[in-house]
Amino acid sequence: MVQSELTVHDIIEKIATFTNDPVPQITRLVYQESWTQAQDYLLGLAQKLGMDVAIDEMGNGILTIKGTKEGAVTLGSHIDSVVNAGKYDGVYGVAAAIVSVKELVEQYGQPTYDLQVLIFSEEEGSRFPMNFSGSLNVIDALPDIKQLQDREGFSFIEEREKALAPLKAKFPIGKAQMPISFAEIHIEQGPVLEIKQKQIGLVTGIVAQKKFTVTINGEANHAGTTPMSMRKDAFKHAIQLITYLENVAQQIGEPFVYTVGEIQLSPNVVNVIPGKAVFSIDVRHINAEVLDDFEEKLQAYVAKQETMIIVERWLNEPSEKMDEGFLSLLEEICHDKNSSYEKMASGAGHDTQVMNLVTKTALLFVPSRNGISHSPYEYTTAEDLERGKEILKEFIYRLAY
Amino acid sequence: MVQSELTVHDIIEKIATFTNDPVPQITRLVYQESWTQAQDYLLGLAQKLGMDVAIDEMGNGILTIKGTKEGAVTLGSHIDSVVNAGKYDGVYGVAAAIVSVKELVEQYGQPTYDLQVLIFSEEEGSRFPMNFSGSLNVIDALPDIKQLQDREGFSFIEEREKALAPLKAKFPIGKAQMPISFAEIHIEQGPVLEIKQKQIGLVTGIVAQKKFTVTINGEANHAGTTPMSMRKDAFKHAIQLITYLENVAQQIGEPFVYTVGEIQLSPNVVNVIPGKAVFSIDVRHINAEVLDDFEEKLQAYVAKQETMIIVERWLNEPSEKMDEGFLSLLEEICHDKNSSYEKMASGAGHDTQVMNLVTKTALLFVPSRNGISHSPYEYTTAEDLERGKEILKEFIYRLAY
Repeated sequence: MVQSELTVHDIIEKIATFTNDPVPQITRLVYQESWTQAQDYLLGLAQKLGMDVAIDEMGNGILTIKGTKEGAVTLGSHIDSVVNAGKYDGVYGVAAAIVSVKELVEQYGQPTYDLQVLIFSEEEGSRFPMNFSGSLNVIDALPDIKQLQDREGFSFIEEREKALAPLKAKFPIGKAQMPISFAEIHIEQGPVLEIKQKQIGLVTGIVAQKKFTVTINGEANHAGTTPMSMRKDAFKHAIQLITYLENVAQQIGEPFVYTVGEIQLSPNVVNVIPGKAVFSIDVRHINAEVLDDFEEKLQAYVAKQETMIIVERWLNEPSEKMDEGFLSLLEEICHDKNSSYEKMASGAGHDTQVMNLVTKTALLFVPSRNGISHSPYEYTTAEDLERGKEILKEFIYRLAY
Repeated sequence: MVQSELTVHDIIEKIATFTNDPVPQITRLVYQESWTQAQDYLLGLAQKLGMDVAIDEMGNGILTIKGTKEGAVTLGSHIDSVVNAGKYDGVYGVAAAIVSVKELVEQYGQPTYDLQVLIFSEEEGSRFPMNFSGSLNVIDALPDIKQLQDREGFSFIEEREKALAPLKAKFPIGKAQMPISFAEIHIEQGPVLEIKQKQIGLVTGIVAQKKFTVTINGEANHAGTTPMSMRKDAFKHAIQLITYLENVAQQIGEPFVYTVGEIQLSPNVVNVIPGKAVFSIDVRHINAEVLDDFEEKLQAYVAKQETMIIVERWLNEPSEKMDEGFLSLLEEICHDKNSSYEKMASGAGHDTQVMNLVTKTALLFVPSRNGISHSPYEYTTAEDLERGKEILKEFIYRLAY
């Protein structure tokens, strides 16, 4: 029967077709039509596979196989993407979770504890200035979202209701159980496993992160008639600050990462001196103190300027440590299955760090070709995808049966 | 009667109401609805004032008072704006031309030569990557526009036909006469007259200009997991080039001007390393050789880079000298009217430089408060507007009667 041939790879390829852009450019931001299509497909698939399905008020998908005892051994990941992304980020963890649960039930029947797969609605923070709204809702830690708007000024709540309407019409509303454990598998999104030629990454912790929006106000003026010495060019001031921080980042050194990924000038026209520049700053390190030092240098620079510079910090994630008992268990499983592995920190944020606030967690990586992610060039071999799923499945088996 | 009270200031305030943005933010790009409304208003006004009106295939407005002899003494300016502009740029020259012609006819009756006012459709190049499409069409020097598209991919020709349809339904199609002279009055858009406390600027020449689009291709990647030493950050490379050229500009020194007014990153998201950066360069100087040297340095820098950098030069305007006989006549008129004046070069391009290719031209400036232009803060006093119109009117009288 079709179900029994279902592979992680099949699900990833199917979800890749739900995108605003032509494949292989994946753009599936939370609550866009492509997002609704992906969630609808996965909930329908889980139903076919005999799982109980529901969605919560944020649009998280909740898939359950009842156990004989109380308590939910939980696994999952997210289905939203960044702009112009690849196929694997998030979706792999969802696909591996669904296939693992399906195969465990086929092979071992009813589990002792509930098997709960969570398909998180949003993790990337690429549409609204907020990350992890899906997993934060699951642990009842969602901040106030009433005022939240995307770049075009669309309201988070209105967009959410529009996107969920068709899903609520087809699937029951529910609430995720508080898990007794959480596991997630994800592509590494970095070059470490490939360079060290290891098959599995066992994550010891997730880096701390800060995200800022910086606004610089200058004076829009004519590009031809305003002597350069008389200008208040907001872009020029932005470049000076960005370059200063680049030097700060070089002094701190790797593994510290500093990224300016987004900038908007006003009026952004060839023959007008920019009157305003708004740009983003994203910094990460396993030690939160390093980020505090960076922020101090940023604030000190801004304080020295005559130009009006507004720095708004809208994300401040501490680092999170994964469960050491789970790490040992995973090492044991890798040995049993003759899979090479590397213990490593994660430079990317993952839903696991949110779940880590309420339960013991495990996070696994598989290699990313050339370490490329958040790009259409993102790629992991079907063999690596399958191997990762096998490790995850064995881990869930040992916890839930 | 209303007409006889018509002032330059009235017309400017009326045209300011035709904008995409709330006043005082003027945005009226060529062939937008606000543009059609402005041209429709001016053609209707000219009809009420007893002028023959027509539009040509580009949407230039052609207003004519017949003379007793062959030949058209011509004056005018443009009605399109940059994004988030002020009220005066271009529109002042149109308003001063209409009021001058109206008053000349009221005071002196039929002229010897035709009085021809041209309301140019586009001069700023802020919507499509092309300047002066209006005046270039008048002198039969319009380049091929078939492929021309704006940032959103709208076709120049399709947008033009959409915008002109309602005008063609109300007003006759015509063609401007080749002028026997051309005069334009404009706000200075710079600080010189204000600093030197002069009332009128008499323009000796218009600077040479070059405009470039630079495209830098890097590699989009995850902002958290890609070590900084392994990145191909297109924005970082763009900043290095922009900063290098800033130093080149400083070495050249004033009055050379260098502006990067526009930049677009892809995907332009906070947690993704920019894979692509596209930005504009605008350089101007009275000696075209200085711009050639700048371009050589730009090309030499690009040639040295490993990163893929594409430089496209899409504007290369030589400098233009205004007619010396007209300059002497204008100096004489300023003396007669006790108006202080300054002879100066124009750092901005104007339709006059295009008309200068086919006829003798004169270009006059009035002061701009704080030298601000291409901004909602653009401002010239009603007194200065009126004085400028008086000088222009006297100049036209001496040529046409």
